[in-house]
Amino acid sequence: MLIVMHQKATQDQVDKVVNEIKARGYKALPIPGGDRVSIGVLYNKGAIDPTIFISMPGVKEAIPITRPYKQVSREFHSEDTIIRVGDVFIGEGHMVIMAGPCAVESEKQAITIAEKVKQCGAHMFRGGAFKPRTSPYTFQGMGEEGLKILAKIRREIGIPVVTEVMDYESFDMVEHYADMIQIGTRNMQNFSLLKRAGKAKKPILLKRGMSATIDEWFMAAEYILEGGNREVILCERGVRTFVRHSRNTLDISAIPYVRNESHLPIIVDPSHAAGRREQVIPLSRAAIAAEAHGLIVEVHHEPENALSDGAQSLYPEQFDLLCRQVRDIFGIFEKQHKEEQLR
Amino acid sequence: MLIVMHQKATQDQVDKVVNEIKARGYKALPIPGGDRVSIGVLYNKGAIDPTIFISMPGVKEAIPITRPYKQVSREFHSEDTIIRVGDVFIGEGHMVIMAGPCAVESEKQAITIAEKVKQCGAHMFRGGAFKPRTSPYTFQGMGEEGLKILAKIRREIGIPVVTEVMDYESFDMVEHYADMIQIGTRNMQNFSLLKRAGKAKKPILLKRGMSATIDEWFMAAEYILEGGNREVILCERGVRTFVRHSRNTLDISAIPYVRNESHLPIIVDPSHAAGRREQVIPLSRAAIAAEAHGLIVEVHHEPENALSDGAQSLYPEQFDLLCRQVRDIFGIFEKQHKEEQLR
Amino acid sequence: MLIVMHQKATQDQVDKVVNEIKARGYKALPIPGGDRVSIGVLYNKGAIDPTIFISMPGVKEAIPITRPYKQVSREFHSEDTIIRVGDVFIGEGHMVIMAGPCAVESEKQAITIAEKVKQCGAHMFRGGAFKPRTSPYTFQGMGEEGLKILAKIRREIGIPVVTEVMDYESFDMVEHYADMIQIGTRNMQNFSLLKRAGKAKKPILLKRGMSATIDEWFMAAEYILEGGNREVILCERGVRTFVRHSRNTLDISAIPYVRNESHLPIIVDPSHAAGRREQVIPLSRAAIAAEAHGLIVEVHHEPENALSDGAQSLYPEQFDLLCRQVRDIFGIFEKQHKEEQLR
Amino acid sequence: MLIVMHQKATQDQVDKVVNEIKARGYKALPIPGGDRVSIGVLYNKGAIDPTIFISMPGVKEAIPITRPYKQVSREFHSEDTIIRVGDVFIGEGHMVIMAGPCAVESEKQAITIAEKVKQCGAHMFRGGAFKPRTSPYTFQGMGEEGLKILAKIRREIGIPVVTEVMDYESFDMVEHYADMIQIGTRNMQNFSLLKRAGKAKKPILLKRGMSATIDEWFMAAEYILEGGNREVILCERGVRTFVRHSRNTLDISAIPYVRNESHLPIIVDPSHAAGRREQVIPLSRAAIAAEAHGLIVEVHHEPENALSDGAQSLYPEQFDLLCRQVRDIFGIFEKQHKEEQLR
Repeated sequence: MLIVMHQKATQDQVDKVVNEIKARGYKALPIPGGDRVSIGVLYNKGAIDPTIFISMPGVKEAIPITRPYKQVSREFHSEDTIIRVGDVFIGEGHMVIMAGPCAVESEKQAITIAEKVKQCGAHMFRGGAFKPRTSPYTFQGMGEEGLKILAKIRREIGIPVVTEVMDYESFDMVEHYADMIQIGTRNMQNFSLLKRAGKAKKPILLKRGMSATIDEWFMAAEYILEGGNREVILCERGVRTFVRHSRNTLDISAIPYVRNESHLPIIVDPSHAAGRREQVIPLSRAAIAAEAHGLIVEVHHEPENALSDGAQSLYPEQFDLLCRQVRDIFGIFEKQHKEEQLR
Repeated sequence: MLIVMHQKATQDQVDKVVNEIKARGYKALPIPGGDRVSIGVLYNKGAIDPTIFISMPGVKEAIPITRPYKQVSREFHSEDTIIRVGDVFIGEGHMVIMAGPCAVESEKQAITIAEKVKQCGAHMFRGGAFKPRTSPYTFQGMGEEGLKILAKIRREIGIPVVTEVMDYESFDMVEHYADMIQIGTRNMQNFSLLKRAGKAKKPILLKRGMSATIDEWFMAAEYILEGGNREVILCERGVRTFVRHSRNTLDISAIPYVRNESHLPIIVDPSHAAGRREQVIPLSRAAIAAEAHGLIVEVHHEPENALSDGAQSLYPEQFDLLCRQVRDIFGIFEKQHKEEQLR
Repeated sequence: MLIVMHQKATQDQVDKVVNEIKARGYKALPIPGGDRVSIGVLYNKGAIDPTIFISMPGVKEAIPITRPYKQVSREFHSEDTIIRVGDVFIGEGHMVIMAGPCAVESEKQAITIAEKVKQCGAHMFRGGAFKPRTSPYTFQGMGEEGLKILAKIRREIGIPVVTEVMDYESFDMVEHYADMIQIGTRNMQNFSLLKRAGKAKKPILLKRGMSATIDEWFMAAEYILEGGNREVILCERGVRTFVRHSRNTLDISAIPYVRNESHLPIIVDPSHAAGRREQVIPLSRAAIAAEAHGLIVEVHHEPENALSDGAQSLYPEQFDLLCRQVRDIFGIFEKQHKEEQLR
Repeated sequence: MLIVMHQKATQDQVDKVVNEIKARGYKALPIPGGDRVSIGVLYNKGAIDPTIFISMPGVKEAIPITRPYKQVSREFHSEDTIIRVGDVFIGEGHMVIMAGPCAVESEKQAITIAEKVKQCGAHMFRGGAFKPRTSPYTFQGMGEEGLKILAKIRREIGIPVVTEVMDYESFDMVEHYADMIQIGTRNMQNFSLLKRAGKAKKPILLKRGMSATIDEWFMAAEYILEGGNREVILCERGVRTFVRHSRNTLDISAIPYVRNESHLPIIVDPSHAAGRREQVIPLSRAAIAAEAHGLIVEVHHEPENALSDGAQSLYPEQFDLLCRQVRDIFGIFEKQHKEEQLR
């Protein structure tokens, strides 16, 4: 923490800040500057709440230096976390593709799509049984019946499944059926849910909130890690901006930033970022080209009859093209890494 | 819904859209234009999912015309909803002030502040017992002990209390102790919580999500109304933008827009909008001048020792000034209304 | 400037940063912390470019402490700047209202509106002769003919006029006819125009850019002050956000922040913030309640026939109501200031 | 245009809107709906100003259907525009890389960098002679001397040059020396400059404004096309959002959207989007993977001594890696297109 004093702060005000720092067990280092005095706070472990100091007379700003997250940080844990779900590896050196409909609508629909996406090369099946819907008047998901269909897909088609949990009450049930549990955008700061996820025995796919900073996203993951579950996959899905030509704005810079700052894998959801089918493939290619560790994509065999998100769901043949193109791009990195190892 | 076709859409594509509209039980009205054909969807009750049509070949856009909310709308219910909490009225013609610390930290702290804010003219006491905190390492609230302190404040100081509920599990407990239940920004789209709130016997204070559109906010309220609880107060608390000089950007336009579109009361939280003490009073005055139905303000007798949100909490004497100033502004409207009635 | 090193930065990397600081003539103060070393840069006059240090190995962040602006700052010039235009005073203790149509469309239209707004209590007349229009196909303003009409209004109706300048070439002409020169939102960082404005003999009304931070806005004003023209009035007109219910989001917090940080007057344009007539009066009241020094409002006697911005232009009778209401609110502050002086 | 009436609009109000539409020479088609009447405006050529109708009693909304731009649109001109600069082709089927320092600082600096970027495979050299700087106190560019250095680079190193023009006054001079003229972000809506660019004999590189919608960007390009210059290249450079981990947020969706809506080429500036060197390569790969037609990248041989934008400038060896990686990605598309042609 660095505390910046007003240009006209008195010596007495500076002294009071110094004393407050000491009273809290830290070391204070006043730094005389050209225009004003600043005061460094030293030897703190972890972040300090800046509001303590902003309240004091003569203080202009309190600038945090230490990041608030710890276990999520690569400084804390330098090796890449690689998560295994059945035979699927998620993390550095792998490219995972999860695909399926927005919602499980019927056994027939789900199985039809699961077979198709597996053929195209998807490693995991996605499909919602509990749907967070903006309107109380729209389809809210099949509930446990949907989860049973997912379990059947894993069993019969041989592909692990990921599905969303919406609340604490249904967590046990979702955890029972799913291979991986998704926490959605609207629940990224549902702290009760995050604490429960910290006790889960399954990996958590944590989507970024609609307008969350990366620090906030990391802190949400920190709740899960702190709870004891170290298997968290981050999922960038676009942030809300002023733009109108896409549903959200995919934050591509988040990929290199997260890769650098954290050891956790990061994948991308191009479907919710775009909100329009024709942008999904370009965004998918961009995500893999920026070295995301994978994708989660909405696919439907009859999007025009989908009960939700039809406009952004790919046709199976489009998904097939997507898979081929991102494999080609990922191949470039693989080839390069092999060449580097040979040297 | 208006469906806009591509300039080069074929007659066959237009026909297919028309047939799809009819198949869903609506009436289709093709509208030839200068450049392109559009197709109106008529006689629908409630909103239609645009994604059905966006998926179809030749379709450029599907523009919703009917709003997705119903019970929240002034078109549905034209009279202002006025909510009574004890002797306090919230809604048109009244100005309610809720005040208190961010969190209940101890009986002594809470009672000290409650006495002060009541003296200054606050009508309700606010204070968190369960705190949604970005970091798992910071103070999470006193839990039920905090709720008991709130109940004591109501009993002994004679002022109704509002406090936040964070999850379904603790809802019964919060409902038992509180006079009004707050659903926070991060839970605005926690649909399980909204459904439970729809069954509650206490009024709900529904804060706007950090980057929620007003349509989304209304839809969240619609969940509560649809569940059977008609006592919802909306609370504008600023939205996240690129600006740096305040924690959020208070959306003043939301006040006239909500007043016009909905019959529900709308109040403002200047403390979370500002994030800095020195902006709280100007924002409060602005909110009342724009005809918000009230304020919810953070006040602390020792902000520098507050366990959370100290930087934005007012000193009691600042809160006193705030109350006097907003009463003067509200007085202008009252005087004007009386004059209008006399004519 | 505070330079924060990576947790694993080597001593050698720290030394190199220290040497770089010294080589540039500043003093370096290494600050050992709990997790990492930071290095303060001392005795610099004015802001230092952080990019110099971000480029160096081992550096995680470079945090500017000194603000980049100088002459705009209240720390540099503590007394409120009050600007006089004819008999009109703009700045602390005064409330100025500028009103008129978006564009001067004809002598008859402009004079009709000027008479009406003057009757209602406007102190200055606004009207565009050169219009920055998004589309090349729409009305671009009357040019010099429009300026002559403005001059006639000043002469015959006795009210000073403010109008926009769009480029360097027409600056002399606008300066010749206008009492105050407006630089519009889209030109806030047109640095050639700002430099010319610094040489102008008339006060400049500087609108905030559509997504400008306050630092950037201040720096734009700094160009004008640095050029020698000390008469700058800042105009907040809403920033672009994700919201849909208003054209822009009026940034009310900018008012207390600017009042605190700068000695320059700040007024508000509620018309462009709202983009819809029905929000203009509430936003105007809010702005004055937050202690803006005035308003600039679009008024048209026949908005439905306006050549531009009809939807946000007030009818004269609405403007009359607006003037009465904001005068009442401003009266509260005046009364309070008098009471304070009597004590 | 579709005009949506209030639910309780009277027949008289509907009639007045219909008459207004007819009075303006269009055809009106009233559309009775479930809840309310809407009125289609037919047979208009080009966009209609919605504000005319929003002003009328009983009108709730006026929704534009026709896009405001024309010559920029693919509906107007279906074939891809390909622009030739010397031997360089910009547009569909080509990948152009422009690279160089933010600013020309000296002949030696510029030539050193030009030689390096040409070796790595850059097709054009970039470098600013006139710099739009936020602060009046920082380096403003070398002016004509810088332009002469650029001309020398073209002559001696054999690579075309692109440089920014900041105002009307210096346009002739820049046009004389440069092969391509850049209009920067802050000038995207400097309409005087756009009109001059419409008369230029050189291609224009038009950067997107900091928070411009694509419609606004297209309208800026429309000014240039309308003026007679049909050689416009669009450049996406990130938009301003709430995020902190990058300077701007690169809007990847803009690439497929622009490719679809317009015939003009679109390239990407990853350097200004990122603002940090370590994100530039991932963003570059993402841009090409999303089928941008090229890149404009900041490169400096000694970024730590750059007079501007050092933090985001690549070292030459990083730029070399970038070129190799984006060529590999572009190769995937080329291979695919060849395969498609063979079928």
